[in-house]
Amino acid sequence: MNSQANTNTAPSITNGVNVTALFETIDAVSNNPTIADFQFRASNKWMGGDNNRTTINGFHGACDEHVHIKGPFVMDNAEPPVLLGQGAAANPVEYVLHALAGCLTTTMVYHAAARGIEVEAVSSQLQGDLDMRGFLGLDEDVRKGFSKVRVHMQVTSDADEETLMSLTQFSPVYDIVSKSLPVEITIEKSGRN
Amino acid sequence: MNSQANTNTAPSITNGVNVTALFETIDAVSNNPTIADFQFRASNKWMGGDNNRTTINGFHGACDEHVHIKGPFVMDNAEPPVLLGQGAAANPVEYVLHALAGCLTTTMVYHAAARGIEVEAVSSQLQGDLDMRGFLGLDEDVRKGFSKVRVHMQVTSDADEETLMSLTQFSPVYDIVSKSLPVEITIEKSGRN
Repeated sequence: MNSQANTNTAPSITNGVNVTALFETIDAVSNNPTIADFQFRASNKWMGGDNNRTTINGFHGACDEHVHIKGPFVMDNAEPPVLLGQGAAANPVEYVLHALAGCLTTTMVYHAAARGIEVEAVSSQLQGDLDMRGFLGLDEDVRKGFSKVRVHMQVTSDADEETLMSLTQFSPVYDIVSKSLPVEITIEKSGRN
Repeated sequence: MNSQANTNTAPSITNGVNVTALFETIDAVSNNPTIADFQFRASNKWMGGDNNRTTINGFHGACDEHVHIKGPFVMDNAEPPVLLGQGAAANPVEYVLHALAGCLTTTMVYHAAARGIEVEAVSSQLQGDLDMRGFLGLDEDVRKGFSKVRVHMQVTSDADEETLMSLTQFSPVYDIVSKSLPVEITIEKSGRN
């Protein structure tokens, strides 16, 4: 990753992140916290059986509505045959691992950039243990989701492991998965045709 | 969705789910709980800046190793320009909404099938509120992830809303997002070349 001098014409780039813009963002949010209010959105449609499809068009943030310039992003959920599906796509809990891996990585890279720490490579392997008796309703004492998630990261950087670990703690998806969160579900029912 | 008589030759299908196989699974797990021990896995590689890529090859479950027959599933995380990225893909918290939408839908459809409830259509819209001051480290009292997630589902079925809501409560991703979960992170560091 290249570091460039911060001048009026060339932004400072570390780890592929525009650090000049990052500090401008931090300054802007410090002056006006409403800039930091984001709302992410998704819509989903059941395609039959194990298959459903999400469309992500845009989001609200920085006091404005945004449409994804390379979107809409469309992604499918499915289940493998052993879970009675057709296996056409990853399943929802696998997408959680994807989200967690990506968020820890991006968070580490961005926060490293802000501290002037250069990162050369990051890779990770994740495991999520899940006892299907919870989902199947066979034992109320067994939780429905993962009982535990393990993330093992390999990072090439001059920073030490303790510093790198401290950077991951700012990860939104790590926060979402590791700490309880209010999820409000409403259902609007129609009779069948 | 078709219902068929459960005979020796034709499995019973409701909502596109093989209910015969579902009850066989429940019986098998009741007799041998180790069948229910699953481990889902993902590996991820940083591609530079805001972009990283997950590969999902297979998983462990039902006392066996499984390779995704239509995999490996490859998916990217990225960030939009307002979050200093190139916007090439959905971001990690948007993938969490995708996972949650899909899991609530699949769970409702599977559990409805097990109870003989026919479902004709399911769609949902999700919103996740996120205050970026948490990620940016500007306020320790602001959480890094979503402060709240709202899910609004439209379901076409003869079942009432209370029954449909009760079916969603078996969702693994709903459990993962709404309840705290141990996430163990380890970092293996190499010096830069």
